[in-house]
Amino acid sequence: MNSTQQKQPVSADEAQNSNFVTALSRSAEITEAVLERVLPQPSGLHARIHEATRYAIFAGGKRLRPFLVLQSAGLFGVKPEWAARTAAAIEAVHTYSLVHDDLPCMDDDDLRRGRPTTHKAFDEATAVLTGDALLTSAFGILSAPATHESGEVRCRLVQELATAAGSDGMIGGQMIDMLAPTGAFGAEEVILLQQLKTGALFEFCCVAGPILGQAGAKDEDRLRSYARDIGLIFQITDDLLDELGTTEKIGKTAGKDKSQGKATLVSLLGVQAAREKAESLARRAALTVAPYGKAAAELQELPIFLLKRES
Amino acid sequence: MNSTQQKQPVSADEAQNSNFVTALSRSAEITEAVLERVLPQPSGLHARIHEATRYAIFAGGKRLRPFLVLQSAGLFGVKPEWAARTAAAIEAVHTYSLVHDDLPCMDDDDLRRGRPTTHKAFDEATAVLTGDALLTSAFGILSAPATHESGEVRCRLVQELATAAGSDGMIGGQMIDMLAPTGAFGAEEVILLQQLKTGALFEFCCVAGPILGQAGAKDEDRLRSYARDIGLIFQITDDLLDELGTTEKIGKTAGKDKSQGKATLVSLLGVQAAREKAESLARRAALTVAPYGKAAAELQELPIFLLKRES
Repeated sequence: MNSTQQKQPVSADEAQNSNFVTALSRSAEITEAVLERVLPQPSGLHARIHEATRYAIFAGGKRLRPFLVLQSAGLFGVKPEWAARTAAAIEAVHTYSLVHDDLPCMDDDDLRRGRPTTHKAFDEATAVLTGDALLTSAFGILSAPATHESGEVRCRLVQELATAAGSDGMIGGQMIDMLAPTGAFGAEEVILLQQLKTGALFEFCCVAGPILGQAGAKDEDRLRSYARDIGLIFQITDDLLDELGTTEKIGKTAGKDKSQGKATLVSLLGVQAAREKAESLARRAALTVAPYGKAAAELQELPIFLLKRES
Repeated sequence: MNSTQQKQPVSADEAQNSNFVTALSRSAEITEAVLERVLPQPSGLHARIHEATRYAIFAGGKRLRPFLVLQSAGLFGVKPEWAARTAAAIEAVHTYSLVHDDLPCMDDDDLRRGRPTTHKAFDEATAVLTGDALLTSAFGILSAPATHESGEVRCRLVQELATAAGSDGMIGGQMIDMLAPTGAFGAEEVILLQQLKTGALFEFCCVAGPILGQAGAKDEDRLRSYARDIGLIFQITDDLLDELGTTEKIGKTAGKDKSQGKATLVSLLGVQAAREKAESLARRAALTVAPYGKAAAELQELPIFLLKRES
């Protein structure tokens, strides 16, 4: 038998999945190349902040948010360099939020992406400053002329990010999350929490494409709808992993929400109903981007990938 | 005797000083009016983050950085609303840095501007998020169309602020400061620390005027020189207050640097030589802005005010 005969025939489903996984890892490479270039190399008396910043961000991770930026930009023929820089900026913001959320005074986590969290590998003060530096760098990246030829477009990105990441976006969500163990939260409160804490940043990622491509309000609205569904699917599958996964597989401490007595959509709806909700959102998300045809193939695949993920 | 006769004649020096104090408090009012308008009112499940943000920023303070923005903008005929919004953004960044620096894992301070620090009045997690929210809001303010008619100019402000506040600016300075008690720092290291920790933000304030006024590189350079001198004067007089002042007068814990064994310019040079250094910088700073004539009167007065300050 030769090697060709040894291979099992690949199903259409698997082939599609394999394209998706390739696209996802390609996005990560593109984003990390920009981050490598724009983040300072360790130097000077303050080299420690550069080291910690690089430790925090070059830690693997799926780079799902950059993927969304690059895919949404792909729908509108955006220059690859512009999209890649925007992807790098959002990953900096996402990483900052993880570094601060992991602090002892917040979620107090020792493990992130399978490694010691930044305050464990360095110290708390350095971790606070690392988050601050990553957040600041994101705005520096977006506002630089290399991110778009139009200053107006760059300013729109900065504004959208400030809104998505601000006190009525991601930070507001984290604030609610800190209050969650003491609040008797129902499904409505949990959905609001998640829309702010994770959904707002997903929305930025998806709307970045039409903004960079100057596509207009209709496309922006469509991509925002898609983002809201994806954000909720992501959160439900995250909660399912926290409920059912192992620390080894997910690379962070499993079972935290339950042990902290936090309400999640899974604890409120039950595993089965939560999974069905996610599946229904996945169908809707795929339909939302169907009008973009073949260019949206990966965006249509993403909800299926999220439903199947094990980490 | 009537009340007019009771008054002592006012010296030219006192009259000038009184103009300066009026200008300083007017700047604070203008800046606070913008902050009042742009920062969210407490509302929703996450009202606590809005409350803490307002607690942190509406705490008095001299608003020296906004004053620098407004005065430097005044040299170039910048629209008052544009200057006021830029002033508000820099005060948000300054306040964020105070909130994070006061955290237990950083300088561990209980008192700021004469009141409990944000983590004392609320809690540590809320203080971390408050700093994050203030930093984020600054970029939102600068990038908004109301801050300048040109997107390119707004982007330049965002970029300058990201550089000044980033890991090779203010955050880098704070990183060095955290390492300072363990490092055998000489005057060179202490000056670098201060240039990054406080000087970089002063530079942003002073260069904001020529940027908003699209005045060009020559004016930007001149204002940067002025800012560097003012930053160092500010730091020396701050160290003198830490060395000689009382906690009651300065509104924060006095004698901290000494008790932590940190080198300052005052501990390295001695009180007398440090004061003389500040006086020499003050003369140079006043000369630097002399070419702007009467419009620069307050900027010329500022170094004298700093030398005389008691809080």
